[in-house]
Amino acid sequence: MLTKEQVRKSLETVLVPGAMRSLAKMNLVRDVSIDNGRVDVTLASAALAEGTQEWLKDKIKDATGKLAGVNEVNVRLVDGNPKDLNEVGHVFAVMSGKGGVGKSLVASLTAVALKRQGYEVGILDADITGPSIPKMFGITARPAGSDTGILPVSSRSGIEVMSINLLLPSEDDAVIWRGPLIGKAITQFWEEVLWGKLDYLIVDLPPGTADAPLTVMQTLPISGIIIVFTPQDLTAMVVRKAVNMARQMGKPILGVVENMSYLYVPEIDKKIELFGRSRGEEMARAAGAPLLGQLPLDPALAKLCDEGNIERYDSEIMTKLGESISQMSNVPSERGKHD
Amino acid sequence: MLTKEQVRKSLETVLVPGAMRSLAKMNLVRDVSIDNGRVDVTLASAALAEGTQEWLKDKIKDATGKLAGVNEVNVRLVDGNPKDLNEVGHVFAVMSGKGGVGKSLVASLTAVALKRQGYEVGILDADITGPSIPKMFGITARPAGSDTGILPVSSRSGIEVMSINLLLPSEDDAVIWRGPLIGKAITQFWEEVLWGKLDYLIVDLPPGTADAPLTVMQTLPISGIIIVFTPQDLTAMVVRKAVNMARQMGKPILGVVENMSYLYVPEIDKKIELFGRSRGEEMARAAGAPLLGQLPLDPALAKLCDEGNIERYDSEIMTKLGESISQMSNVPSERGKHD
Repeated sequence: MLTKEQVRKSLETVLVPGAMRSLAKMNLVRDVSIDNGRVDVTLASAALAEGTQEWLKDKIKDATGKLAGVNEVNVRLVDGNPKDLNEVGHVFAVMSGKGGVGKSLVASLTAVALKRQGYEVGILDADITGPSIPKMFGITARPAGSDTGILPVSSRSGIEVMSINLLLPSEDDAVIWRGPLIGKAITQFWEEVLWGKLDYLIVDLPPGTADAPLTVMQTLPISGIIIVFTPQDLTAMVVRKAVNMARQMGKPILGVVENMSYLYVPEIDKKIELFGRSRGEEMARAAGAPLLGQLPLDPALAKLCDEGNIERYDSEIMTKLGESISQMSNVPSERGKHD
Repeated sequence: MLTKEQVRKSLETVLVPGAMRSLAKMNLVRDVSIDNGRVDVTLASAALAEGTQEWLKDKIKDATGKLAGVNEVNVRLVDGNPKDLNEVGHVFAVMSGKGGVGKSLVASLTAVALKRQGYEVGILDADITGPSIPKMFGITARPAGSDTGILPVSSRSGIEVMSINLLLPSEDDAVIWRGPLIGKAITQFWEEVLWGKLDYLIVDLPPGTADAPLTVMQTLPISGIIIVFTPQDLTAMVVRKAVNMARQMGKPILGVVENMSYLYVPEIDKKIELFGRSRGEEMARAAGAPLLGQLPLDPALAKLCDEGNIERYDSEIMTKLGESISQMSNVPSERGKHD
């Protein structure tokens, strides 16, 4: 006896091009009905170009048609927009106030760690004028889309990414925009990108406490903020500004991460504190949130980032970072839950 | 025979409180006349609080009254605003696109180097949401002023500084402003701060290519841009965005400075290239401008910055940086010219 469950399972094998996740995970399957060997699948057309719609229809017919007891497969497309289809469990913003402390790095490592735990993860690069995420993941593909929305681009390990740099003719092009346009771009990345079903969306904020962080905090349902800092006094001050902003906007701080804590020099088997002694405890106290990790300045990691291979990085510190975050956000860590 | 020159020279000894430069250097002396032992000094009242005006009158009477042949000194105050009184030789903006590469550090070292060459130097901190300059110079004094303008605050070595952080109740306070307000603050730092006569005003830009750099490039008479970068590929990309912005805005790039080029580890007498091999030549080519210097990642310098003692730093690299800049800007390097 053919069940809807079987049909839905067959739809799990059909991947949306670009985003490289199944129709089900992209939340495009709106309805499945079975009537005497005839299967009707209703699919939202959000963010799907016409050619892609036709291609998906064929793929669905192939995948579902193979099931025992199926005589006929009909696919009906209905309107839909990303905003209504997106189901994101947690939106976490990575913030710092100060530039260059490693926000994008922490955002990326967090995403990679959570993905390895088996979660569905996306990264929204809200740094419109200095986007780093595509470079770190080695993503150069242009996002596909239609007039109803845009599809994110999948990284090698299946993290969904959206960044302004994927939309520019050349990655070197400057986005010389004033605040309102930047705010609009970020809002579109939230409302017009088909993220589908995600456990975590990590938002990489630009430095400062101006338009971009303001828009993110006012527009996106941020469930927690991760603050990144380096051990410099100067950085600490600017980071306290970010902490104060988060408080004023009523957003909970999930935890703090110290970056460039030290440099390990193997030749002398010594850790050098390049920017002074660690400020982990101090910053955790200032933020009223736990210290989630202390990352060293690791030339090997810098190299992986430059090569677009951040997903190849493996370290205990990173794994712990991901575990702390998933534990704190109370999403059961079911390895392979989405397999 | 009493000369105007003598009177003006005596006015060189009267320092404006806070800014700690003479009335003449602050360009407040509008006229001097001598009539039979009677000296009339006309002073602009711009940015001077009433108490300061009275205090300065007394100081002028003291200083000028001492000259041989002076029977009477009269000080007349006339209206004036900073915008009309400011005479700045060169306005250089330090820019990067990417955060945390050391813009503020390069801006500060440039200012210190030029000051040591005998020039009159100011720093306009255009990083409204992440201001670093006061911290590096150890400046905590609140700027004085009146309803016609604000006085900058002098650093220990006599560099005039204006930063939003000097105006905040606490240095940790976040400035949660959207672009238009940020642009307004920067414009005020240019038009309503009494910089007086300066050879160089160094503008420390925030990261990005949005509101703040746009306002600076559109509002201030920028004569050159100094681009700062680190050897990371990621940084290089974002820096090329800054180069493209400067070009689109028609601003000449004076030169490029590589920061965090390497770390010198004395224990093994070795330079470690933390972020990969130097990109000095490559970035100079991309910017179509000379490589002005390559700064190491120096823990001693990081410490001096944290302690507010950047003016104590001394290195050949810094001296050369200052020399290159003054040579390129064609201001004769007269050591002691302002003494």
